[in-house]
Amino acid sequence: MAFAGLRQEGLTKARIEALTDGIFATVMTILVLTLRVPQLNVPEKDLAGEVLGLWPSILVYVLSFVTLGLYWVGHHAQFHYIKQADRPLLWINILFLLTIGFIPFSTSLLQDYPWPPTAVRVYGANLIANGLLLLSIWLYATGKRRLVDKDLDPHIIATARNRTLVGPMMFTLGIIASFIDTRASVILYILVVPFYIRPSHIDIHFRGGTHRDKEREN
Amino acid sequence: MAFAGLRQEGLTKARIEALTDGIFATVMTILVLTLRVPQLNVPEKDLAGEVLGLWPSILVYVLSFVTLGLYWVGHHAQFHYIKQADRPLLWINILFLLTIGFIPFSTSLLQDYPWPPTAVRVYGANLIANGLLLLSIWLYATGKRRLVDKDLDPHIIATARNRTLVGPMMFTLGIIASFIDTRASVILYILVVPFYIRPSHIDIHFRGGTHRDKEREN
Amino acid sequence: MAFAGLRQEGLTKARIEALTDGIFATVMTILVLTLRVPQLNVPEKDLAGEVLGLWPSILVYVLSFVTLGLYWVGHHAQFHYIKQADRPLLWINILFLLTIGFIPFSTSLLQDYPWPPTAVRVYGANLIANGLLLLSIWLYATGKRRLVDKDLDPHIIATARNRTLVGPMMFTLGIIASFIDTRASVILYILVVPFYIRPSHIDIHFRGGTHRDKEREN
Amino acid sequence: MAFAGLRQEGLTKARIEALTDGIFATVMTILVLTLRVPQLNVPEKDLAGEVLGLWPSILVYVLSFVTLGLYWVGHHAQFHYIKQADRPLLWINILFLLTIGFIPFSTSLLQDYPWPPTAVRVYGANLIANGLLLLSIWLYATGKRRLVDKDLDPHIIATARNRTLVGPMMFTLGIIASFIDTRASVILYILVVPFYIRPSHIDIHFRGGTHRDKEREN
Repeated sequence: MAFAGLRQEGLTKARIEALTDGIFATVMTILVLTLRVPQLNVPEKDLAGEVLGLWPSILVYVLSFVTLGLYWVGHHAQFHYIKQADRPLLWINILFLLTIGFIPFSTSLLQDYPWPPTAVRVYGANLIANGLLLLSIWLYATGKRRLVDKDLDPHIIATARNRTLVGPMMFTLGIIASFIDTRASVILYILVVPFYIRPSHIDIHFRGGTHRDKEREN
Repeated sequence: MAFAGLRQEGLTKARIEALTDGIFATVMTILVLTLRVPQLNVPEKDLAGEVLGLWPSILVYVLSFVTLGLYWVGHHAQFHYIKQADRPLLWINILFLLTIGFIPFSTSLLQDYPWPPTAVRVYGANLIANGLLLLSIWLYATGKRRLVDKDLDPHIIATARNRTLVGPMMFTLGIIASFIDTRASVILYILVVPFYIRPSHIDIHFRGGTHRDKEREN
Repeated sequence: MAFAGLRQEGLTKARIEALTDGIFATVMTILVLTLRVPQLNVPEKDLAGEVLGLWPSILVYVLSFVTLGLYWVGHHAQFHYIKQADRPLLWINILFLLTIGFIPFSTSLLQDYPWPPTAVRVYGANLIANGLLLLSIWLYATGKRRLVDKDLDPHIIATARNRTLVGPMMFTLGIIASFIDTRASVILYILVVPFYIRPSHIDIHFRGGTHRDKEREN
Repeated sequence: MAFAGLRQEGLTKARIEALTDGIFATVMTILVLTLRVPQLNVPEKDLAGEVLGLWPSILVYVLSFVTLGLYWVGHHAQFHYIKQADRPLLWINILFLLTIGFIPFSTSLLQDYPWPPTAVRVYGANLIANGLLLLSIWLYATGKRRLVDKDLDPHIIATARNRTLVGPMMFTLGIIASFIDTRASVILYILVVPFYIRPSHIDIHFRGGTHRDKEREN
């Protein structure tokens, strides 16, 4: 019966992943609508100038797209370990997606250069909300090992938690920096990217994890 | 042959779920386009004011997103029990998706505060249509146990039906309230959310259901 | 080797279906953007009037949504019989999706009532292109039984072909009618819907088909 | 353990494909939003003229849609050979999707006829970036046969690499041509399409590949 439950809940997990992938795909795509397309019949000289003048928007577009990529990879890594789903997980995940869906709005606020403080803070607050809700998924699923393997290595639980916390901490620093210079805030937001892209200890445990999976399934 | 039919229809069921998940993901994402982004080069003081002034829109954005989440979870729970698909189910589902796809329009009507009665009623009527079509899927699929297990517990059928009815009834109350004060309507719409998020008897039967599934499959 | 080839091509078929479902889901959703949302701060009396005045747009929204549903069901039924994919099928399918992706543009032309002849003709031409490309998928896949079972019943091939032809023929009549009265055109476009929704001989053969599938797979 | 790792990484591959299919589906769909819909209440004579006058936009819409189709088919063919995923692949793929998501912006620049040089160059540069990142996925995955079968035919690796290079080279020629006549550039961009649609040697090896797959799996 435990095994049947696992399979059944695995179905739920598959549809959560489908909704999540769909929302990430759509959000990452409609980000491009935040770029203001120059008017028709602009003279060539002005058109080149206008496109170049979009660089702050394009930079923020790239930042938002890559940050969404970070969160998608993070969600993806969590659901490697999460084996079951229940009602609270479903709803924490929907709240996470709610804040992900808000990113095109926050991004479209950041059009001017130098960036307005309000826009920088709304953007940072949005990224913090994303990060804290991603963290909540992990804390809920691993607390009392509710939805993960009962023998999941505590080191993996702690490492993933700490890694997820780094983003919100950096974004908080960015918001504080906005009271001095909003360009410093944007630089801090950008610095989160290389931190998350570099390989992690969890990747190594990943391979170990697959070994255990195999044993359990046999 | 019954078994092959089941597998075949299971394929159909998978594509209905794929279309449904895709439409929910896109609708939940483009909701953000209903938020009016402030103009370029707004002075900082005005920008903060404009963003704060968006609170009625942001509240409605959150309400629509979470309500879509409710309906997605409801659809998802129904398709846990629905084992086969046929042509009428396909079309009731498409009508359901039609009304789901209409939500960004209804949401974008609700921008002003205090909310205009027409906007509140269109929004409520949309949510009622969603709920009644979701109910139709369930009534059609479980009527004569057409598309569910022949031995599905009648208590589950009735509980799911009654739960699905609560939304349309609350939204009807909300429309009636709009003749007195549209703020009361919006509060009634919001109150539907905690009702559906709390755990349900069906969740308990869920686990029982998986047990029977296992037996049938063995 | 034939079996391995089938499995391999089945993979291709799965991703064609994924792209198709994704495009249908997005097109059906962004249709709602063709509805013009009334301006902010419209007086209540005018808002009710404006929403009611949208009925021609809303009618066309519903028509487009349901017609997309028809084509999605048709594609779905074809891919029940299509067992393999090859490069030409991939490209006919992409052209089909190109014309499906054009529907929000054609739909947004049809905003005024009584509908302008140009708009009615562009819309009809778009639906004809959809139908003929859906027919091309079928003709290519079943010609010399390229991508279907070698023993597929010729009656199914002919019935599906004839059914698919009815849409383009009706839409052609609608374009001709637009030279007299464009309201007649829209009525003709609407009449296609009940024709396709009613059950079909193919549905009956469907069940037979699953029987053969089972035998082949055992 | 090697086998378990393969299955595990296969899961990652499936979600990369899901995100990729979702982004392609959404990008291909929102392309239609780059077409400017004529205003309401335009007289019939002007409406026909306005729709005809959109031909340069519609041509570019078709070109972008089909080119996205080319890249989707290319990605799809690569992931036929790629058996595993790792962190760098994930990120090269996300950068690839970033440039794919940028196409609606580049497309919307190309509205006027004759096309403005800046618009033609931004569009060409976007397509070059797409092509080079698709090439990077292939070079990374096949370098030292990191993520493909250890015995993958070197001829397939080289043929796929060379085919992928043709696009960026043609688009570079198109950018050079824009200094003489931007119509020549657009023609060069269009000529890439028939090159990629015609069958390829890789398709032949494809079938060979499935034979080996079968052997390994047995």
